[in-house]
Amino acid sequence: MKDFMNEALKFAQLAYKKNEVPIGAVIVKNDKIIAKGYNKREKKQNALLHAEIIAINKACKKLKSWRLDDCILFVTLEPCPMCAGAICNSRIKTVIFACKEQTSNDGLCELILNSNRLNHKVNLIQDKKYEEQSSELLKKFFKEKR
Amino acid sequence: MKDFMNEALKFAQLAYKKNEVPIGAVIVKNDKIIAKGYNKREKKQNALLHAEIIAINKACKKLKSWRLDDCILFVTLEPCPMCAGAICNSRIKTVIFACKEQTSNDGLCELILNSNRLNHKVNLIQDKKYEEQSSELLKKFFKEKR
Repeated sequence: MKDFMNEALKFAQLAYKKNEVPIGAVIVKNDKIIAKGYNKREKKQNALLHAEIIAINKACKKLKSWRLDDCILFVTLEPCPMCAGAICNSRIKTVIFACKEQTSNDGLCELILNSNRLNHKVNLIQDKKYEEQSSELLKKFFKEKR
Repeated sequence: MKDFMNEALKFAQLAYKKNEVPIGAVIVKNDKIIAKGYNKREKKQNALLHAEIIAINKACKKLKSWRLDDCILFVTLEPCPMCAGAICNSRIKTVIFACKEQTSNDGLCELILNSNRLNHKVNLIQDKKYEEQSSELLKKFFKEKR
């Protein structure tokens, strides 16, 4: 498997340069990237525009289907509840994230991805290779904002 | 307060006519509707396009802000995790829903809306006046689909 998390991290770095919370995501099908996204909340002034949502939106358009079966989402930060719910709704099979949220310890992401409500459970995997880089980028961003 | 749930129900009926899961939503600020939405998942083949997401997207564009402070969302069905997360992310203050999901009893909507992660809690209120109409419309839709 190619180093898709590195691609997601590049997108997080792009978000950082654009003064957005630095999070990046890519969606992979058959070992190919079919959609990418980085956080655009501030620029677009839109609460929905997290990296994962942008990538899922693009992937649905590309595949012309709301079902993203057999897709893997790589994201630099563990998804928030909105994005975890969107991942379930789009039937993405596996989520690989680099670092955990520092501020929340509510376990909501796992609860949502493991819920029975859609007869669809999502595998949630942490890839520790890029954990520190992803986490340091976020810390740097928030330190500068203070 | 005007009968905003009736407006949401009209949108659910519109979704029904268009062969979509019949759910409708409106967002209200200062006693005026600023955004409306109905489910468009099938037509647009996009997993994100629930009634609430469409309404939140429109409201952010209208107010030119990702923060929907002091907004109330009326929706005919209790929000799914994606939509509950989007409601938190957009800082909507209050959600009023007509009927509960029949198939899920996981309490995720309440857990998400009450989470501490954003220092923002959302009031969740059931308006029973349109409970039966909203629920019957959904039951009719799924019965015909079978």
